[in-house]
Amino acid sequence: MDNWSVVVLSGGTGGAKLARGMLDVVGAERLTVVANTGDDIEIYGGYVSPDPDLVSFWLADRIDARGWGLDGDSFTVMNTLRTLGEEIWFNLGDQDLAIALKRAQALAQGQTLSEAHLELSARLGVRAAVLPMSDRPVRTRVLADGHWWTLQEFLIKARGQGEIEGVQFRGAREAGAAPAVLAAIAAADVIVIGPSNPVISIGPMLAVEELRDALTASRAPVIAVSPIVGGAVLKGPTAAFMAHRGVEVSARGLATLYGGVIDALVTDEPLDTDGLTLPTLRTDLLMDGAESRARLARDTLEFAKSVAATPTIE
Amino acid sequence: MDNWSVVVLSGGTGGAKLARGMLDVVGAERLTVVANTGDDIEIYGGYVSPDPDLVSFWLADRIDARGWGLDGDSFTVMNTLRTLGEEIWFNLGDQDLAIALKRAQALAQGQTLSEAHLELSARLGVRAAVLPMSDRPVRTRVLADGHWWTLQEFLIKARGQGEIEGVQFRGAREAGAAPAVLAAIAAADVIVIGPSNPVISIGPMLAVEELRDALTASRAPVIAVSPIVGGAVLKGPTAAFMAHRGVEVSARGLATLYGGVIDALVTDEPLDTDGLTLPTLRTDLLMDGAESRARLARDTLEFAKSVAATPTIE
Repeated sequence: MDNWSVVVLSGGTGGAKLARGMLDVVGAERLTVVANTGDDIEIYGGYVSPDPDLVSFWLADRIDARGWGLDGDSFTVMNTLRTLGEEIWFNLGDQDLAIALKRAQALAQGQTLSEAHLELSARLGVRAAVLPMSDRPVRTRVLADGHWWTLQEFLIKARGQGEIEGVQFRGAREAGAAPAVLAAIAAADVIVIGPSNPVISIGPMLAVEELRDALTASRAPVIAVSPIVGGAVLKGPTAAFMAHRGVEVSARGLATLYGGVIDALVTDEPLDTDGLTLPTLRTDLLMDGAESRARLARDTLEFAKSVAATPTIE
Repeated sequence: MDNWSVVVLSGGTGGAKLARGMLDVVGAERLTVVANTGDDIEIYGGYVSPDPDLVSFWLADRIDARGWGLDGDSFTVMNTLRTLGEEIWFNLGDQDLAIALKRAQALAQGQTLSEAHLELSARLGVRAAVLPMSDRPVRTRVLADGHWWTLQEFLIKARGQGEIEGVQFRGAREAGAAPAVLAAIAAADVIVIGPSNPVISIGPMLAVEELRDALTASRAPVIAVSPIVGGAVLKGPTAAFMAHRGVEVSARGLATLYGGVIDALVTDEPLDTDGLTLPTLRTDLLMDGAESRARLARDTLEFAKSVAATPTIE
């Protein structure tokens, strides 16, 4: 297991924490994290890539205690913008802004999103590969209360409230996966879908056909780790999005959403094979510290090994 | 004199200091400062307007002791950009950056440069009107050592060194003056050209035909205050630019550059009427504190009053 190449698909916090656990277990050389870019936003002259950055901050042990942004960052620019009459709905620390400005400049100079993020991530001290899912724009839009929101606006301005009437991943059809993403998936010994929102964090990746095809074509087992912990979702409006997609908030609902992609599932729910034909590992999903993150990563990899050794139930 | 409406044409520090003195003498309601925009630069996702901002910082008593930028500003964004591998040649404080980002946003939303700057300036606490000379782009370019530099690059990267072989004010021909500038000049009782570099700070304004025409058409006396103090220029490469224009570094050289525009001249040079037919006030030009700034402003206005009462020598 120690020499396995691992790919983790990640949205925000849940996937990032599991990726941090994987880093302890397999080391930076064997870890690739593919992160959702559907939340990306161009603002304040910069290009903000919330999920790839969150993953990098976690892997660099630079995540702030508030759960987002860089540890100990200041907010002078945003505070000044407020005094200049700007209503700040998207808060960004000064160092975070510098990252966004640098990324925008790199893109303007012709770098791909992957190249720009790999360089930024390395400068932050990350040795694992953190890759945006695509080099081309994919933008998640949420229809709620009759209004199409960008994802950040929906989560922040609308506080994730309101009945969800539609979800779009604009650009996904034409996007294609980043070349390094396809290479990492082709070379992977195990692929883990992190415990992120299956609709708006993992969904954009599965909507990129080339990425989805690479997952299904891969010889490596694809294992989803459920974001549902103790029957509830710890962070964000996952339940509402699963309800919108017409599935229950459970491992079974997750298996339906990931149908045709995953080979097995990690959940803390009581085993209930009724209608669930996938191999399932039942384990504690709470990641409240370095030890529990590494334990879940290790359990997931050991389970993946057993899945890989067994013919998949089709 | 207390109820005179005053327009000051200003580049950077010299003009800004005199404008600050004028504020003490005539008050905010009667003071309009027209500032050079030939140095404007789009960078870090923002729109930086060095001269208008410098004037506003001076009028708001917010200028930092270093001579540029806002007092007590931090540099987190620039320092972070450096750690991300960016070579920072144009330094900008965090609050200064916020101003630039806000201005870029206002322009993107369709505000004119004048509107954007008036709002920013008011938010900083400036009650006098500080106006960019034009709402359209004028960009100063300097040819030195065979290379055309933007003005900021020439001053910072090339340290203002190298023989000056050419100066261009790109866009000046098509620019037109900002409407508020023309209104202020038409209503002025006195127009003062501040002690700024006559070629690259005042020159761009005189290259805007509509602004130049307004100055010559104005019934108000136009008085230039010399930037040459004690035979030398206190700040920046003024001497080299005057040499490039083929005039000596003296009140006489200044009178040549401003020929057809000014009615009188304030200088600290010994009177030498040889070839200089303009009314001239000889006084101390050093502005090293609030008192000397106000004194020079008052002397200039009193002199302007005497000039206004006397038919101009043609």
